[in-house]
Amino acid sequence: MKSRSGKASHTQRFAYDGLDRVIHERARLGVLTSLVAHPKGLPFGDLKQLCALTDGNLSRHLQVLQVAKLVDISKRFDGNRPQTLCRITPQGRKRYLEYLAVLEQVILDAAAAVEADPDSKRARGLAHT
Amino acid sequence: MKSRSGKASHTQRFAYDGLDRVIHERARLGVLTSLVAHPKGLPFGDLKQLCALTDGNLSRHLQVLQVAKLVDISKRFDGNRPQTLCRITPQGRKRYLEYLAVLEQVILDAAAAVEADPDSKRARGLAHT
Repeated sequence: MKSRSGKASHTQRFAYDGLDRVIHERARLGVLTSLVAHPKGLPFGDLKQLCALTDGNLSRHLQVLQVAKLVDISKRFDGNRPQTLCRITPQGRKRYLEYLAVLEQVILDAAAAVEADPDSKRARGLAHT
Repeated sequence: MKSRSGKASHTQRFAYDGLDRVIHERARLGVLTSLVAHPKGLPFGDLKQLCALTDGNLSRHLQVLQVAKLVDISKRFDGNRPQTLCRITPQGRKRYLEYLAVLEQVILDAAAAVEADPDSKRARGLAHT
């Protein structure tokens, strides 16, 4: 290794500014992935189960997503029972897809890094890309 | 859509517990990806540039990674200049690879979700998987 590389060859190569923090947070990433998979929306209770969150945690994260206009929350009736329906907005879907593209770049970078390390050919096949 | 699905068919399908928060944080993900790509270590200054972080931010994140035993920090001399060298530990590398496997699952889930949505065939080709 050159001990004094001076200028890094790829400046800011690993900055990943595109990893929007509103989306990147682990619980919210799960919530948004659930909602992308259910474009017509999910009742609060189903979303809670899918993401293994408590009522309080899910409410808190939904509020962050709603303020960011990524998710739309509405009340409706399922028979006589009031129900909270959570849906991803068109803007939320767009930003989620942009986020995913950056996430894929992380995977590609990581896979390239692992491949390039001569001590760890055993890690080959990590990425299916 | 069934309005009252009762039990979600895949309980906790989107919980992503394996997304270790120590690694998942955006700046630390960049730091670890840099260090995986440079298994012999990187000087503090190079790492700072690659990840586009300030001295203070990089120090703070390195401390979190060091406490978690994912990164090893050592002082050495480059000629007469003291230098801080940052290296990923074997345990750090192992946990990073485990994290990556979960991240790949997120990408696969997301790609499947996008594919399944009949309104958005234009999103096809998002994932190269």
